Amino acid sequence: MAATLYLIPVPLGATAPEAVLPAPVLEQIRPLTHFVVENAKSARAFLKAVGTAQPLQSLLLDELNEHTPHTALQKLLEPLLAGHDIGLVSEAGCPAVADPGADLVALAQKNGIRVVPLVGPSSLLLALMASGLNGQRFAFLGYLPSKPMERAKALRNIEAESRQHRQTQLFIETPYRNRPMLETLLATCQPSTRLTLATDLTLPSESIVTLTIGEWKKRTPPDIERRPTVFLLLA
Amino acid sequence: MAATLYLIPVPLGATAPEAVLPAPVLEQIRPLTHFVVENAKSARAFLKAVGTAQPLQSLLLDELNEHTPHTALQKLLEPLLAGHDIGLVSEAGCPAVADPGADLVALAQKNGIRVVPLVGPSSLLLALMASGLNGQRFAFLGYLPSKPMERAKALRNIEAESRQHRQTQLFIETPYRNRPMLETLLATCQPSTRLTLATDLTLPSESIVTLTIGEWKKRTPPDIERRPTVFLLLA
Repeated sequence: MAATLYLIPVPLGATAPEAVLPAPVLEQIRPLTHFVVENAKSARAFLKAVGTAQPLQSLLLDELNEHTPHTALQKLLEPLLAGHDIGLVSEAGCPAVADPGADLVALAQKNGIRVVPLVGPSSLLLALMASGLNGQRFAFLGYLPSKPMERAKALRNIEAESRQHRQTQLFIETPYRNRPMLETLLATCQPSTRLTLATDLTLPSESIVTLTIGEWKKRTPPDIERRPTVFLLLA
Repeated sequence: MAATLYLIPVPLGATAPEAVLPAPVLEQIRPLTHFVVENAKSARAFLKAVGTAQPLQSLLLDELNEHTPHTALQKLLEPLLAGHDIGLVSEAGCPAVADPGADLVALAQKNGIRVVPLVGPSSLLLALMASGLNGQRFAFLGYLPSKPMERAKALRNIEAESRQHRQTQLFIETPYRNRPMLETLLATCQPSTRLTLATDLTLPSESIVTLTIGEWKKRTPPDIERRPTVFLLLA
């Protein structure tokens, strides 16, 4: 029988899997014995919390992350071709969105393998829902340039494009650069542009606030440094 | 105590709420007594399946859909300002994404009301995960023009933009126009462009297949007419 590649979402922080995954998703994960994971250590902690049918040390975990050479992908697919279901697990949230997992999914699609995405938390989607910004047209732009001048230039382009298409723009930053990103946003964007800061999604400390750039400037900036944050902008 | 606007995802078809919503999400829905819903009839069926704490007929459901005048929004917010939590419920999937719910969320944000997005199924995100297309940069473009010439022109622009930015393009169509949409895609796009058809997500009949336009042309087109489908394209 043909094997399936299951795309397994994981919690966005120190949250129990039961808190963010539907019960049937947990049931689909438990019998799996083969996994491709972004980070073996955190994937093992997740699978332990889920409670797999087989002992943790007997599970086969292969890593796929930004250090994986493209030539290694075919080998990761081999268990599927040999008839074993595989679970793809990201570091946080939904695999194959804003992580290297999409390359394995692409190869599975190319080989005609069945791919089943499971329901779970996505920081991008939760942030978009709660932002109140345009949900009929939006774009995720990944990471922006980290150098201040280039970041400011990128933000001006993003804001102009948002105005032209009424498009909500989503982007992220490595958490220890969240403060400089916010500073550049406040210094660069128009006062009427709306900016959402969506921080610690699904965690007890969750905060999702939308204000105009003009309103943000009048406030003490929120403490987003080193806390996972999605930035959303609508000009 | 200040009230909260909960954003409640619902199943994408004839699926039990327990199949696609985490247990704590169901627990957060049950005690609610006030709802703003896209369609009262389907929302009642959903709430009945969830099993609300109060009898179904005692719940207050206000409708918010494409027929709702913008001037009526403030009234929908009143229960929140009076201290009652509200659940926002879309016709299918996640509220405030590709539906009119975002206007209410925007007004809640403007009034400083706490907005909490709950985890559940999103056809857009599930389709993106399973497509194998670029998950580091993508855009949702909503509905394209329905007239054949304008649709073809829009698709050429979408394909060119995808090539320029390596951006996955997501869009939808009213289900009874899915076949003409596919025909225009096959007639308009480059043979090397990848096209994903993601149909009946989370349902037993789910199908998510990525092929190049050239490969799709050699196949009998899949039966997507009148079945909810997300189209994804990467040039």
